Amino acid sequence: MTTVALDLLGGDGAPGVVADAIARMAESGELAGTADPSGDPIDLIVVGPAATASTLLADRGVSQVSVRIVDAGRGASMSAHPLSTLRDHDDVTVSVAAGLVAGGLADAWVSVGHTGAAVAAAVLGLGRVPGMSRPALAVVVPALSGPVVLVDAGAAPDATPDILRQFALAGWAYARALGVEDPGIGLLTIGSEAGKGDRLRRSTHDLLSESLPGSGVRYAGAVEGHDVATGDRAQVIVTDGFTGNVLLKGIEGAVRWSAHRMGAAYGDMEPARGVVRQTATSEFAGGMLLGVNGVTVVGHGAGTPDEICACVRLAARASRMELVPSVQAALAKVSRS
Amino acid sequence: MTTVALDLLGGDGAPGVVADAIARMAESGELAGTADPSGDPIDLIVVGPAATASTLLADRGVSQVSVRIVDAGRGASMSAHPLSTLRDHDDVTVSVAAGLVAGGLADAWVSVGHTGAAVAAAVLGLGRVPGMSRPALAVVVPALSGPVVLVDAGAAPDATPDILRQFALAGWAYARALGVEDPGIGLLTIGSEAGKGDRLRRSTHDLLSESLPGSGVRYAGAVEGHDVATGDRAQVIVTDGFTGNVLLKGIEGAVRWSAHRMGAAYGDMEPARGVVRQTATSEFAGGMLLGVNGVTVVGHGAGTPDEICACVRLAARASRMELVPSVQAALAKVSRS
Repeated sequence: MTTVALDLLGGDGAPGVVADAIARMAESGELAGTADPSGDPIDLIVVGPAATASTLLADRGVSQVSVRIVDAGRGASMSAHPLSTLRDHDDVTVSVAAGLVAGGLADAWVSVGHTGAAVAAAVLGLGRVPGMSRPALAVVVPALSGPVVLVDAGAAPDATPDILRQFALAGWAYARALGVEDPGIGLLTIGSEAGKGDRLRRSTHDLLSESLPGSGVRYAGAVEGHDVATGDRAQVIVTDGFTGNVLLKGIEGAVRWSAHRMGAAYGDMEPARGVVRQTATSEFAGGMLLGVNGVTVVGHGAGTPDEICACVRLAARASRMELVPSVQAALAKVSRS
Repeated sequence: MTTVALDLLGGDGAPGVVADAIARMAESGELAGTADPSGDPIDLIVVGPAATASTLLADRGVSQVSVRIVDAGRGASMSAHPLSTLRDHDDVTVSVAAGLVAGGLADAWVSVGHTGAAVAAAVLGLGRVPGMSRPALAVVVPALSGPVVLVDAGAAPDATPDILRQFALAGWAYARALGVEDPGIGLLTIGSEAGKGDRLRRSTHDLLSESLPGSGVRYAGAVEGHDVATGDRAQVIVTDGFTGNVLLKGIEGAVRWSAHRMGAAYGDMEPARGVVRQTATSEFAGGMLLGVNGVTVVGHGAGTPDEICACVRLAARASRMELVPSVQAALAKVSRS
């Protein structure tokens, strides 16, 4: 059984939308403690104000036995300065949830709140994996030829070649844990010819070309923006958090654009909308924070109940597949330059 | 009548694919000199090896009177080092085509070849607009709420706040020329809260907030990747050429992904593919190079004949709407900081 701590106060629609997600998981028998749990149930800990949590869950018919509540009164997302809130208070839900993982009381934690606050809480509460200067948010894109891990999707906006090298190794470990046999690392740039791209990419290309051979990690070379959706050229696509976040949101916007235009072309919006919904609740839903010593999933602030359920499932899956030791091992493979 | 010079040797399928495009325009009566030209015909000059051009056009039944040929034997795209080819030879098609515009013999020119070579030929042959440190490639995205100008889409990978300010003004002029009444400038970043983004975006936000008020150019603030496809928050979206190119290609890939997945959901691929084709041959087809003293359109290297036709139409339209003087006027509005 896998124990997942869930931040009740993270997300634009929190706490109601998070309570809705919990009710769905309880109904579907995914949670331990429900009358008829499924094969591999999740032991869920809700982290939030206890009275609010009890009321919201009771309103939704979730029995007290199916989830445990850990009291924490302060949401980071709702504060104007989430990082100072985190420093100044010990009852912030993201810190308490990360602390449960650090203390061995939970295997993984999830927040759909403020990304910066969740990343800071993970770094402060869990610590970084040796060799990882900054954690990275990895998102799995369901590309046409299979899953593609895009890393970083927004945790570290300003990167260096060495940081991108770390992201490549951590992303490689994540892809392997997800079942991709021999993931190729692609460096996101513009134009696939050598020497193209900005200064950061040219230096990173040289570093990856020199440091990866012999490590068992395959460098597939330069890839472009469209390769994220096709997945033909690499299964791990590495970039800085600024570019990765812009690209990921651009792709999401383009898929919604397509649903609108293509739905109109067929004269029936519903099947196109179904593709959008199904994609949003696949592994695509949650960002996996790589490089901290504990499984941390950060979801969309605007996540729906189904998307929050997908984040909790992803967190449980990452814990079962021993993601953190895999990332540690990958970073130890290539010594720092 | 508008005269457009077209590079015969640009593009992955050149010269055949360019000749195919010319044949389509001749058939549809868009070209001056055809038997029954349409209302506002384009006077087309083909720039390439004269013998090859004559043969290819004759093979496709294009009469000699409907297009003129200017002899130039060397393609920049096919060379391993296009920029040194450009420096060392005076018979490179992109240089000759830009030179026709510089000399007043053409109103605009088009190449679907190597972007770097086309940009260099434009800068060398036409010169930069005063106040513009580097030209920028602007692409019109047919967003849900109307056209959105994305600038820069790949001409200048490494930018500074002042360069992004120049791109904003040039993009604003382009949007106005396209008929957008009061285009808002959006700065592409991650998270819409102030203070988010990387170092470049934080400095650029400050510069735009200080320099644009009072100029008549409206700064709409920070936007995110998905805003390019919706167009709700800004009609001109400004970014560096690295991010812009990655985003644009990411969007293209996501639209193809959507056509595949949504087509499958409907059990009929054709209407979804029609949306992709129609988008590729809209204004979306060609990048408009802003900040040089002559209308320059750079298309996709992998462009189809229909996409090349769309680039020629876009070039003629930009000349008719007096794009270059509009960009010059916009850059003169805000003095350099």
